[in-house]
Amino acid sequence: MKNIRTLTFVLITLLISLLVGCQNSTDSEASAEENEQQPIIIQGPMPIEAENFAAKLENVEEETSGNFLFYKGYVEDYPVIVMKTGKGMENTAAATAIAIEKFNPAAIINQGTSGGHDPDLHVYDIVLGKRTVNIGSLKTGHREDEEGIAPTEWIPMDLMASEGSAGEDKDAENIRYFEGDEGLLEAANAVKDTHEEGKVVEGTIGSADVWNNEVDRIQWFHENFGTSVEEMEGAAGAQIAKAYDVPYLGIRTLSNNKVNGGEYTPETAEANQEYVYEVVKQYISTQK
Amino acid sequence: MKNIRTLTFVLITLLISLLVGCQNSTDSEASAEENEQQPIIIQGPMPIEAENFAAKLENVEEETSGNFLFYKGYVEDYPVIVMKTGKGMENTAAATAIAIEKFNPAAIINQGTSGGHDPDLHVYDIVLGKRTVNIGSLKTGHREDEEGIAPTEWIPMDLMASEGSAGEDKDAENIRYFEGDEGLLEAANAVKDTHEEGKVVEGTIGSADVWNNEVDRIQWFHENFGTSVEEMEGAAGAQIAKAYDVPYLGIRTLSNNKVNGGEYTPETAEANQEYVYEVVKQYISTQK
Repeated sequence: MKNIRTLTFVLITLLISLLVGCQNSTDSEASAEENEQQPIIIQGPMPIEAENFAAKLENVEEETSGNFLFYKGYVEDYPVIVMKTGKGMENTAAATAIAIEKFNPAAIINQGTSGGHDPDLHVYDIVLGKRTVNIGSLKTGHREDEEGIAPTEWIPMDLMASEGSAGEDKDAENIRYFEGDEGLLEAANAVKDTHEEGKVVEGTIGSADVWNNEVDRIQWFHENFGTSVEEMEGAAGAQIAKAYDVPYLGIRTLSNNKVNGGEYTPETAEANQEYVYEVVKQYISTQK
Repeated sequence: MKNIRTLTFVLITLLISLLVGCQNSTDSEASAEENEQQPIIIQGPMPIEAENFAAKLENVEEETSGNFLFYKGYVEDYPVIVMKTGKGMENTAAATAIAIEKFNPAAIINQGTSGGHDPDLHVYDIVLGKRTVNIGSLKTGHREDEEGIAPTEWIPMDLMASEGSAGEDKDAENIRYFEGDEGLLEAANAVKDTHEEGKVVEGTIGSADVWNNEVDRIQWFHENFGTSVEEMEGAAGAQIAKAYDVPYLGIRTLSNNKVNGGEYTPETAEANQEYVYEVVKQYISTQK
């Protein structure tokens, strides 16, 4: 009799524990997700533009998705994910979308090397993308057979202006600038003295799947789009980050500058990551 | 005594049921996911390139992600998702990545209108993308100040050739073609007689964030890249689909053709969707 009573007591206790336990495990999963800090994402297109930063992370786990490689770790106990996106606008747009869908980031920094458009900028200088712009999105003029190709007559095409045909729509004939996030810009400006190899300035980053080595064309972009530098990624990530309302900033060092004779220096990629690491620490300090 | 024994029995039964029940609910969720058919995704950039097909779906639910709109429904009881991707390479690359991440599709068809590059193709003809190519990915020649811009000297740049600098890498100076999926091409060829407003041919779809209206430049692409038509999306989706090994095909009708005087006809967008609907039904019949 006593044994059976004890058994009954034990069973009731077990039953209640199980019910409460199940409920709690569901709740605690949900609240763990809610309480988890949103990571900061650092994008680099090429291995030399991502691996130095990745090596600075603590407790790194690697994850891949398609051609993208994520290094998931921590900077000063704050979650930071470095991702190697591959080159070009398409890889970067897709990488940004995947990162947002998978990790719900607090902010994205797209960083790496670039080619100078501004004659006052030199190799190892760094441009903070107060604006980024797709300089590959263009409409040519109307010219018939044997009337030639006139690239200085081309006009900008804004792919986000409307949902109608960009070729037919006059509203699409404007330059679309994507603004860099103010909080990220503030953090970047706060630590610019840590970059000793060159200066750090705010500017306009132009992006396209194009490698411009014609000085006249570079000057045309500098005059007509206000570009400080060119690279092949920034505006693609900016466009997608904007669609999802995720804070975004491009940070690009000059690895060469065709307009003032600055020779290609791949080591600038590492110096840029050193600087971006300082920016991230500064940004984290404002998030805590 | 008897009551307590009964209570004990009831409690044990409850405890076992609860344990087994929990286990089963986890199992059944997992197996539902496994047994679910992988959807076919139909991409259209502009509303007129997606809404006709979306209206043909049964049991539609709408879902949004960023600027992307998904119409999730069925064609003949098979899951088909129509997505409005927005225009251009960046939106399409991101849309393709998101669709793959969210829905694990069996196949993706990117479809809509295009501008003719081949003088033998006319408005309402349809090109099946046996190949797609990014015709916005280019390297200019090296020219100093006041040496001009020479767009017919530009060479292709393959962003997927290596992980090094595309500007420095000679291996990147090739045209990267993305092959259309054979199963999708077979389905498309099997129903080409259903398209009565024009012919259906296999060809090369060129894509860039550029609207070319210079006949000499169009001819340059036709001769050097083998393009049949141009649009602003196909190669972006192809590149991302390839990275995830998802079958992909571009299907594009000519809404105009600058090289033979074909005037812009937006109604071609609807005719293309009618044809793609036949392709999807044919493809589903081979999947069952």
